[in-house]
Amino acid sequence: MSPKSPGGYKMVLVVRGELRLTPGKAAVQVAHAAVMLVEAARKRQAVVLDAWFAGGQKKIAVVASNLDEMETLLRVARAKGLTTAMVEDAGLTEVPAGTKTVLGIGPGRADEIDAITGDLDLL
Amino acid sequence: MSPKSPGGYKMVLVVRGELRLTPGKAAVQVAHAAVMLVEAARKRQAVVLDAWFAGGQKKIAVVASNLDEMETLLRVARAKGLTTAMVEDAGLTEVPAGTKTVLGIGPGRADEIDAITGDLDLL
Repeated sequence: MSPKSPGGYKMVLVVRGELRLTPGKAAVQVAHAAVMLVEAARKRQAVVLDAWFAGGQKKIAVVASNLDEMETLLRVARAKGLTTAMVEDAGLTEVPAGTKTVLGIGPGRADEIDAITGDLDLL
Repeated sequence: MSPKSPGGYKMVLVVRGELRLTPGKAAVQVAHAAVMLVEAARKRQAVVLDAWFAGGQKKIAVVASNLDEMETLLRVARAKGLTTAMVEDAGLTEVPAGTKTVLGIGPGRADEIDAITGDLDLL
């Protein structure tokens, strides 16, 4: 599929539901993942990054039940060649330092990412 | 103050409280602002951006009551020379297209940003 595929490009931010983060904490961790993904994609998939920006930098935030589920999604996304980022919190507030809070996937083709995260509930 | 000032660097994301966005929508809009700020700062304040990354890309999400308050904060931040970004939603879901949802300020010196947004409640 070309960069002009109808589905376009997206980024998905998977929040670890079991941590029950406050909305503000979740928002900051999601933003952290998005920035990490942009930095990583600039180095490894600049054409995809540009296409994603051109399409309005589409993002979606969803929830995984627990760390096991997040790590499974991470492995699958990596195996597909997608850009990934796992946020580890600095631990200054709600959770211990090093706690994995959000998995970011993309930017990538919407159909490829949906095949991995399409069944997860919205945040 | 030098880039090694004790307060360090931060980014503040100001969510428009009156819209009562869902946590997931707020998180995505906050992430959108953060990415816009990083892109803008790379062009106009690369040294500050690098210092902010080196310090762990510190972010905080807060709430403004309404659009008037957000626009006042935007003017003050711009007058101080800070990097700013106003997110206008694409309007695919909870709010009409073009609705201003989040104001991003920074990265910048923590003391400078706190002087502008330090009185706002956390998201």
